[in-house]
Amino acid sequence: MPKKYSYQQLFSFTKNIFLKIGCSDIDAEVAAAVLLSADVRGVDSHGVARLRGYVRLWEVKRINSTPAIKIIYETPSTAVVDGDAGLGLVVAPYAMKVAIDKARQVGTGWVSVKNSNHFGIAGIHAMMALEHDMIGIAMTNASPLVAPTFSIERLLGTNPIAVAIPAGKEHAFVADFATTTAANGKLEILQRKNLQAPVGWVQTKEGKPSTDANEVKNGGALLPLGGDTEHGSHKGYALGAIVDIFSAVLSGANYGPWVPPFPAYVPMPEYLPGEGIGHFFGAMRIDAFRSSEEFKNNMDNWIQRFKSSKTVEGEERVYIPGDIEREIAEERMREGIPLIKPVEDDLTQLADKFKVPLGA
Amino acid sequence: MPKKYSYQQLFSFTKNIFLKIGCSDIDAEVAAAVLLSADVRGVDSHGVARLRGYVRLWEVKRINSTPAIKIIYETPSTAVVDGDAGLGLVVAPYAMKVAIDKARQVGTGWVSVKNSNHFGIAGIHAMMALEHDMIGIAMTNASPLVAPTFSIERLLGTNPIAVAIPAGKEHAFVADFATTTAANGKLEILQRKNLQAPVGWVQTKEGKPSTDANEVKNGGALLPLGGDTEHGSHKGYALGAIVDIFSAVLSGANYGPWVPPFPAYVPMPEYLPGEGIGHFFGAMRIDAFRSSEEFKNNMDNWIQRFKSSKTVEGEERVYIPGDIEREIAEERMREGIPLIKPVEDDLTQLADKFKVPLGA
Repeated sequence: MPKKYSYQQLFSFTKNIFLKIGCSDIDAEVAAAVLLSADVRGVDSHGVARLRGYVRLWEVKRINSTPAIKIIYETPSTAVVDGDAGLGLVVAPYAMKVAIDKARQVGTGWVSVKNSNHFGIAGIHAMMALEHDMIGIAMTNASPLVAPTFSIERLLGTNPIAVAIPAGKEHAFVADFATTTAANGKLEILQRKNLQAPVGWVQTKEGKPSTDANEVKNGGALLPLGGDTEHGSHKGYALGAIVDIFSAVLSGANYGPWVPPFPAYVPMPEYLPGEGIGHFFGAMRIDAFRSSEEFKNNMDNWIQRFKSSKTVEGEERVYIPGDIEREIAEERMREGIPLIKPVEDDLTQLADKFKVPLGA
Repeated sequence: MPKKYSYQQLFSFTKNIFLKIGCSDIDAEVAAAVLLSADVRGVDSHGVARLRGYVRLWEVKRINSTPAIKIIYETPSTAVVDGDAGLGLVVAPYAMKVAIDKARQVGTGWVSVKNSNHFGIAGIHAMMALEHDMIGIAMTNASPLVAPTFSIERLLGTNPIAVAIPAGKEHAFVADFATTTAANGKLEILQRKNLQAPVGWVQTKEGKPSTDANEVKNGGALLPLGGDTEHGSHKGYALGAIVDIFSAVLSGANYGPWVPPFPAYVPMPEYLPGEGIGHFFGAMRIDAFRSSEEFKNNMDNWIQRFKSSKTVEGEERVYIPGDIEREIAEERMREGIPLIKPVEDDLTQLADKFKVPLGA
């Protein structure tokens, strides 16, 4: 059984590590909260498991812990934000706030971001809009691991899309998904358990279908949502491409195969068409379309209809996007966040290195 | 070999039919151009093959051929349009124009539409933005044929998403896809040829996987992009849900299982939470983010890199979204549009009924 840590333990530790690499108090707090939201919501691959990775990027000077994040261009409903090579965990909330401010003014706000780094889970940024009675949208490009339909090259990241939509009495609708058949984190779980991957997740470096969970490590690629062309992989490819273009071509970040890698030991691409990685955020005020009350009544009706749907044999529920993550979050805030041994070891190394107690 | 008709022949015929059901000259022209854009681009299921379906909806008074389409609510960057039960083929270009006008003013424009009908292919509406140096987005909900993950009920339509992005020297990027593994039109092709469907396209009315191309006719359902949960069908379900909510819950149209059916012989749902079907449109001015020239240089670079990608064995090209449809369009504008016999018969019946010559 993996050992469990309380939210507060992991939050203090993570915040302290970010302070040690030079972040301001408020930035360290925001970054820790965003990073931990992944652990809380059960997306273990994107939480404290990556903390050492962020520190390494700072060590090789690819992350600036004291960025001067700023709007470099804007119109009433749009902006481009330069993240100044800051932690995406800090740049993203800044940019999402700009989108929300613009939505307050003119109904919607749309912000494309360059010169950033990985921003944790997309969903938590989209969810910032909810308390303002807005729909939130967040997406990001990422290190190239995905081969477009018919390609043997890794030209796209797992490029997630998140959309958060407020409801009334019901919980908010929160979709947050990679535009691949399966996220890389799911492959890593199979690797640890020595299991095969289902057909449609990966291909070999020669572009042949494969069920080897180590295929991406071996130079192969993840496949776009759909898996193969007979099952619509051209749609997953198009979605990943749209995320890449909105995040990076609109802002002037790196795109396609030239997105900087997350692991600090992977060399940067020799050619860089832009700066850092890119994100894209949107906020739409509900009452820029119709009364918030009417909208929420209809959303409640929508959610109730879908969740009371008859299920296929062997399944007990039809889920609303966000249900699973929210229920995990409730449990983990109550009972603690389990960390597998390799992640605990990682954090212990960080604790020793920076003289910051883990689990104090 | 199916007989071919020139664009001009089919355009005149289609326009004349729309005039006969009472459309104004300009509406008949717009509706004919939108409908035919599907035939031209190779999406045969959404073109003149549906003309008789639209006429039938008019006959049962579910389509108003002289609608007073209007903006019923707006902010600087948003609007809700009431289609007054008009042809979606006419309502959609009106609403997309509103989005473009707003983008011209404040950078982006977002329009949700209620009280409309089927609008042809989504891509043609998104493409309206291109000549204005804008990114165009179009989506619509549709008659329920799709079962969410773990559900045996048909609660969503094939709910397509289209995104059109301008480039410089390269052709525009135009993605246009149903949020299901396969569109219903592809099943109809298999039915005609008496072929089986691949696993992951449909399920039986009891929710079991099936390869019977007639399954949807028999009360079964199409499956969301991904096919099953192991291959990410919850992502396709989330996408279809987002399209439904943006199109109908934001506007006050019908949503989920209550979207009015396209075939006029299928009775309307007894309960209707809104009016008609819903669409959602967006326009984003490129130069609301960065200089149009810089953007287009990067888009050209993006497109060139992807299309020159190494291919898997047996494939000659990696396609950019929109390539296939554009190449079909070039060929069909030159050599004519092939109509299969059942569609020709349909048009002949319309020709006789309305005393309008086909192929004059």
